[in-house]
Amino acid sequence: MTNQAINVTIWNEFRHEKTNAKAAEIYPQGMHAAIAEGLNVQGEVRFATLDEPEHGLTEEVLNGTDVLIWWGHLAHHEVSDEIVERVYKRVLRGMGLIVLHSGHFSKIFRKLMGTSCDLKWREADEKERIWVVNPAHPIAAGIGEYIELPAEEMYGEHFDIPQPDELVMVSWFEGGEVFRSGCCYTRGSGKVFYFRPGHETYPTYHNPQVRKVIDNAVQWAAPAGRDYPKYGHAKTPLEPIKGAR
Amino acid sequence: MTNQAINVTIWNEFRHEKTNAKAAEIYPQGMHAAIAEGLNVQGEVRFATLDEPEHGLTEEVLNGTDVLIWWGHLAHHEVSDEIVERVYKRVLRGMGLIVLHSGHFSKIFRKLMGTSCDLKWREADEKERIWVVNPAHPIAAGIGEYIELPAEEMYGEHFDIPQPDELVMVSWFEGGEVFRSGCCYTRGSGKVFYFRPGHETYPTYHNPQVRKVIDNAVQWAAPAGRDYPKYGHAKTPLEPIKGAR
Amino acid sequence: MTNQAINVTIWNEFRHEKTNAKAAEIYPQGMHAAIAEGLNVQGEVRFATLDEPEHGLTEEVLNGTDVLIWWGHLAHHEVSDEIVERVYKRVLRGMGLIVLHSGHFSKIFRKLMGTSCDLKWREADEKERIWVVNPAHPIAAGIGEYIELPAEEMYGEHFDIPQPDELVMVSWFEGGEVFRSGCCYTRGSGKVFYFRPGHETYPTYHNPQVRKVIDNAVQWAAPAGRDYPKYGHAKTPLEPIKGAR
Amino acid sequence: MTNQAINVTIWNEFRHEKTNAKAAEIYPQGMHAAIAEGLNVQGEVRFATLDEPEHGLTEEVLNGTDVLIWWGHLAHHEVSDEIVERVYKRVLRGMGLIVLHSGHFSKIFRKLMGTSCDLKWREADEKERIWVVNPAHPIAAGIGEYIELPAEEMYGEHFDIPQPDELVMVSWFEGGEVFRSGCCYTRGSGKVFYFRPGHETYPTYHNPQVRKVIDNAVQWAAPAGRDYPKYGHAKTPLEPIKGAR
Repeated sequence: MTNQAINVTIWNEFRHEKTNAKAAEIYPQGMHAAIAEGLNVQGEVRFATLDEPEHGLTEEVLNGTDVLIWWGHLAHHEVSDEIVERVYKRVLRGMGLIVLHSGHFSKIFRKLMGTSCDLKWREADEKERIWVVNPAHPIAAGIGEYIELPAEEMYGEHFDIPQPDELVMVSWFEGGEVFRSGCCYTRGSGKVFYFRPGHETYPTYHNPQVRKVIDNAVQWAAPAGRDYPKYGHAKTPLEPIKGAR
Repeated sequence: MTNQAINVTIWNEFRHEKTNAKAAEIYPQGMHAAIAEGLNVQGEVRFATLDEPEHGLTEEVLNGTDVLIWWGHLAHHEVSDEIVERVYKRVLRGMGLIVLHSGHFSKIFRKLMGTSCDLKWREADEKERIWVVNPAHPIAAGIGEYIELPAEEMYGEHFDIPQPDELVMVSWFEGGEVFRSGCCYTRGSGKVFYFRPGHETYPTYHNPQVRKVIDNAVQWAAPAGRDYPKYGHAKTPLEPIKGAR
Repeated sequence: MTNQAINVTIWNEFRHEKTNAKAAEIYPQGMHAAIAEGLNVQGEVRFATLDEPEHGLTEEVLNGTDVLIWWGHLAHHEVSDEIVERVYKRVLRGMGLIVLHSGHFSKIFRKLMGTSCDLKWREADEKERIWVVNPAHPIAAGIGEYIELPAEEMYGEHFDIPQPDELVMVSWFEGGEVFRSGCCYTRGSGKVFYFRPGHETYPTYHNPQVRKVIDNAVQWAAPAGRDYPKYGHAKTPLEPIKGAR
Repeated sequence: MTNQAINVTIWNEFRHEKTNAKAAEIYPQGMHAAIAEGLNVQGEVRFATLDEPEHGLTEEVLNGTDVLIWWGHLAHHEVSDEIVERVYKRVLRGMGLIVLHSGHFSKIFRKLMGTSCDLKWREADEKERIWVVNPAHPIAAGIGEYIELPAEEMYGEHFDIPQPDELVMVSWFEGGEVFRSGCCYTRGSGKVFYFRPGHETYPTYHNPQVRKVIDNAVQWAAPAGRDYPKYGHAKTPLEPIKGAR
């Protein structure tokens, strides 16, 4: 869609791939590596993981990041509040954020949403069909009418999020539930996209359509290049005030 | 609009009225008393203030509150995180919340919005005209095309909030700025309305149209009586799953 | 939710019930009669049908109607453009409109939406489960987490409508599709709700939860009582203009 | 923002410039020529005007157009319904549409909105200040906090449009009104942007920031390249249906 250089950082908890045989088999280099393979950006793609110092998210890394992708699950509570605050401020100043799957319960997503982000879930190898409900949206470009995943973890409504600014995809699950799977938000000068699929024991991030959605989302979330607004005391009015009424 | 009994609690920081002569003159019983006068609800109207134990917001008070009105300014940081968390959880479970004026910077509003809630401001006794941009909305019922306030503090864009689910009012200011003044949100099972006017040194909460908006907002934000969703492990599928693909 | 008197007119094409044995058996008095049974309003409930003069929708009837419910299917093209224009203008001036099921293709709904309102469909006696995705919304009050209908016609995405102002319900279908089933809009001073279920050969309008949704929607869509805005030449400015720059 | 080739057609009523001395002086080649100067697209920029056969909007022209810009005022009623229908269908199939200023009353905009699109207006050489309320939006890229126009026609609320999917800009007017000036919609697979300024007797389309907004909007509205959804009878279910309940 665009040829501007976008610098992407993929943050992965990177624990399952070291302890779960199935996850390790599917993602021998970590889920972040598989996600990176699907990106088609001009710009740098970097990785950051939980167990690095500062979780790999130093001020320098974040300042050089246009779009941050986030996958976490087991260890949300191990992410330090200080780093969460840093990411939060960077989003408000324009960095895009793509939150994947179990990242719905990450500190950063909950902080940006202002809700519990709770949901229903079930691990039962069930079929998921992710339907596009907004075909005009750039995040849906090139993926057809739906993405079918033969087996995934189920996430079901009610998903406790604010109403999305734009709802792009809704999932059907074999076991009887539905889920708002592709949700767009704006927070400050930054854009946020939540994308549902990607349980660690399924090869979801090898799926070409799932990769296409993530790549589209990166393009959509990349900062638009606007000057940041000025806040605070606007002492001098732009127009004369009669006052003293 | 409705005759159901709605229990309202008006929370006021209640400091300006004790220290600022002008505020004391305009609101001798506190701003909360003036706001209460404007309500036309069947149900109980209670007060709670910062300097009471638990800021007056015990579990019992909150559980008995359908809609909470919030005015704070100087002492946002003195509101304890524990009470903020309590109010937050109560909103997600269905309590309505009306945030007034300088409450934009309260801990509870920022937590629910997920943004800085920053803005421009100026105290210059300038005229404000609050235009209705959604005449179908119940919060705009009976107030005509706009509310004119001869003198108010200015709040100007950019107002760093998420895009409102419904934008009901936009302010014009004499000094040259505009502001999204009436903003509706849903958070969990609760409804939130931000309403701009109400600086402590102006008789804004004596204005009949301002009172009408707050009264309408209370009716709108009152819980609709729905059962709370179930979250977590939905082990038993509603439909058979073939699995093992 | 409210005790105000609301006058409701239920418009029904009323053809299937005369020609289709199954429809006639389920709805011997017409679908409009079954829908009326489910309403719990103080006010008058009237019927209007296609084959009456002016389709039963005279100026007088419409002016006395707070909320109009619309069911049509086979004969959308037989509804005269003049009556559609009349209903349209009445909606913009504040009358609520509830469009049911195959009414998605009615002239009035398409005119108000500005899109084709096309969709996928299938008649296969399949199970539908209508999930609440916005539990705070008054239209979802008292219906629990979902409505299950053992057999219905399928409607599937993409549903070519504008993004709803508020999305309240999403349907799961046994055959693999999803659908945005409860959609809120504002048009002018009027409110519009689209609600999916109700094929003529199923007893859907006898279902208590379906009836509850329609009743809730009527309360939600009833006019809020605001003065209508003034449009056109605003010759005299509210503030002095220096001009002549 | 992007380097993809975008073919733009600028449609102009092109009457004022021939009959009004001031308009002729400011826009000697027509407003379309001035608007074209501000575009920074790779692709073809063409013109079409009311008095050409088929108003210049043949099937061939529209099929080769990615984004259509529309300026009309005096002669909305002279645009044939057939051409309006053609443009409408093309928008639903993915063509972007930018509607400028008095185009709010064009047949095509009203058809896409489903409302009267009425508003207040005044010609009094008054100052307009267009504030950005969504700094994250690509249409606001590079224009700073606001655009100030020394003299323009006033448009005031209530503006009878559906609530925008995204509200990007709000105008302040010297005479006391506000207006939602930059409004984004999706209709079918197409994107629509309404942008307020541009009365024919002011040099508004020579303003670099106004031009920047229009250029940004063209990039935003360009089709995202998705396959068009399939509608109609989906006879074969994606999943087995037990039926016969």
